[in-house]
Amino acid sequence: MAVIVQKYGGSSVADAEKIKNVARRIAAVKDKGDQVVVVVSAMGDTTDGLIDLAYRMNEHPDPRELDALVSTGEVVSSTLLAMALEAMGYEAISLTGAQAGIRTDSTHRRARILKVESRRIESELKAGNIVIVAGFQGISEDMDVTTLGRGASDTSAVALAASLGAEICQIYTDVEGVYTADPRLIPDAQPLAEIGYEEMLELASHGARVMHARAVELGEVYNIPILVASSFTGKPGTLIHGGVSMEVRNKVRSIAHDLDVAKITIVGVPDRPGIAAAIFGPLAEANISVDTIVQNASVDNITDLTFTVAKSQLADAMKVVEPICNSINARDCVTDSKLGKVSIVGTGMQNTPGYAARMFRVLSEKEINIQLITTSEIRITCIIDEAKVKDAVRALHHAFEEE
Amino acid sequence: MAVIVQKYGGSSVADAEKIKNVARRIAAVKDKGDQVVVVVSAMGDTTDGLIDLAYRMNEHPDPRELDALVSTGEVVSSTLLAMALEAMGYEAISLTGAQAGIRTDSTHRRARILKVESRRIESELKAGNIVIVAGFQGISEDMDVTTLGRGASDTSAVALAASLGAEICQIYTDVEGVYTADPRLIPDAQPLAEIGYEEMLELASHGARVMHARAVELGEVYNIPILVASSFTGKPGTLIHGGVSMEVRNKVRSIAHDLDVAKITIVGVPDRPGIAAAIFGPLAEANISVDTIVQNASVDNITDLTFTVAKSQLADAMKVVEPICNSINARDCVTDSKLGKVSIVGTGMQNTPGYAARMFRVLSEKEINIQLITTSEIRITCIIDEAKVKDAVRALHHAFEEE
Repeated sequence: MAVIVQKYGGSSVADAEKIKNVARRIAAVKDKGDQVVVVVSAMGDTTDGLIDLAYRMNEHPDPRELDALVSTGEVVSSTLLAMALEAMGYEAISLTGAQAGIRTDSTHRRARILKVESRRIESELKAGNIVIVAGFQGISEDMDVTTLGRGASDTSAVALAASLGAEICQIYTDVEGVYTADPRLIPDAQPLAEIGYEEMLELASHGARVMHARAVELGEVYNIPILVASSFTGKPGTLIHGGVSMEVRNKVRSIAHDLDVAKITIVGVPDRPGIAAAIFGPLAEANISVDTIVQNASVDNITDLTFTVAKSQLADAMKVVEPICNSINARDCVTDSKLGKVSIVGTGMQNTPGYAARMFRVLSEKEINIQLITTSEIRITCIIDEAKVKDAVRALHHAFEEE
Repeated sequence: MAVIVQKYGGSSVADAEKIKNVARRIAAVKDKGDQVVVVVSAMGDTTDGLIDLAYRMNEHPDPRELDALVSTGEVVSSTLLAMALEAMGYEAISLTGAQAGIRTDSTHRRARILKVESRRIESELKAGNIVIVAGFQGISEDMDVTTLGRGASDTSAVALAASLGAEICQIYTDVEGVYTADPRLIPDAQPLAEIGYEEMLELASHGARVMHARAVELGEVYNIPILVASSFTGKPGTLIHGGVSMEVRNKVRSIAHDLDVAKITIVGVPDRPGIAAAIFGPLAEANISVDTIVQNASVDNITDLTFTVAKSQLADAMKVVEPICNSINARDCVTDSKLGKVSIVGTGMQNTPGYAARMFRVLSEKEINIQLITTSEIRITCIIDEAKVKDAVRALHHAFEEE
């Protein structure tokens, strides 16, 4: 008897009727004889509503309180889903993250899972229950509720799948899988039947919102096959796994884009050891995620240091960066919040030259200026004007995917 | 440094502005130098909304799931209140019932408190925090969330006050205290400055909705003074305690009424030992609260047995009672769901004859037929036609309170 872990996102459980639909989907899996563990997000935009309420109370709500508050959203959806299954004659039980044994560190708002103590889940499965787990949340050593960061119900699901030795982790959402580009932008974008962990990780980290990067990483580490599919259609979806066929590897798999990019450039930095640490240490302490970092070649021991953050974190980042600029005698510190990025991703790039040159040529033909370039072995990312992102994705999709 | 426990009901924290008002009231107490523990109910009609959702999922929602669901309401209000206090510069922390150490039995929907392990609260108080506890909830030995029954946040507050050795437990609500009768019915009703535990217990048990009877009982057992007052006005409220002055005891203290009364009469019951147990045992197992029980004198070993339940429980009660009636060969089983009750309460009645006769005379002068009479040492209750309850309260208030 295999264990199947399923995860349903907020749009899949947005109202009473949708929860009943999800219950029917779960029942169909249970009917096949498997043991089923289901992770749910909060209903629709419940989480945003709770966060709004919090900010009406306090401009800087305490992270511990905020976690306790927003974690209620998933408790509500998980109990309702268990009730819907029971109404259909199935044995079901809801568990909070704490009851499901998801132990985390104490970094509220973005806690990391330390371990999953799955005894309770295992005994509930053995008792014949479908187990519904509140996603996105865990519990710290102090017995305080923590949350794992925005969109991290995917991570809850993959972590549970890993600890239960599940056959597969199925992520049900409102899109039909992973595409060659965002289908809202590129109507001709094609769904992918399968994709490798590394490729998916690059896509998720560079703007493809279909799945949470941490969940993909966890899936890769524990080798859990992850299916991403729509809870609203019968389409097969995309299987993320390690054994992607060789022949489909030798190309650009998908084009990701991200409109949430702001750039900070510290101009005229004395190029001596320890400067980067002096800047990025305090940013990390302030919980600001720095994405791309580029340092230009040093001339006369003076260099320019550029990095990007999410637009929403630009103001907080500048509060940290400006005093440091003064203390290290930087010449200037300039920002640009009207940026976006486009990435081409594919393991095929790894041993095949020419992808980067082709990408830059495509962008230049559209007169799109490249502000920053970063690469990994299987990805090339260009940071460009926000207003040009759509054109760039279209041109790149035409060049690489419709060939 | 004294410990003060306060409780704010749902109407006191119904929206963001009201939560901020409550925060200001709490801050004023903290400023006096006391340690403050606050118990909150869910915002406004949150609990009803969650219960509605549950019944849309399942006509008979599982009690454990229902508890997990509705307990989120108090978590939301407690975290928001903590945030509001922090915004005002006060140190505050919210705790769930489980974190506050409220250990209960496993009777979901109406769990009893077994003990309060107040270590966490004590250490948070010692650290200088105002502690906000989610009311109405606890945790069972299986680590499942339980709720204590409708309106039981009062009970949470008094239990915490008892375990912390609090100086006083202040129950803030939307009424200004205990009155000589329901002021919505009797505009001339007078507020009481103080009342004894036993009197308050009789009032709360017989329809006065101002406070939860279990909380009064707990206050009496642990001798915790309880103040009932409005969170919206500066009025002094009513102090419930053990040391009520002798001179105010010698009268009817207040008149309670209850419109939620249904009557079941089992006609022609063979009067042999064990019959009452055969009926009330199964009702108790079905979690149906039986209120008044009256058995008429037996003639020829055949008796009539009458008892009352809440109107909402009449249908469930009949499902239990009807098969029993058949099995014990009762002649008939009749119900009446259009009843109410009026009670006069006061320790003054204890050693003074004539109160009962006077009550019956007042009702008969208004041509109100008495269906059942029950008494305690300090209370006389008449069950009458629902439509006559208002007239009865008015007439009794005029006779006993305006004398």
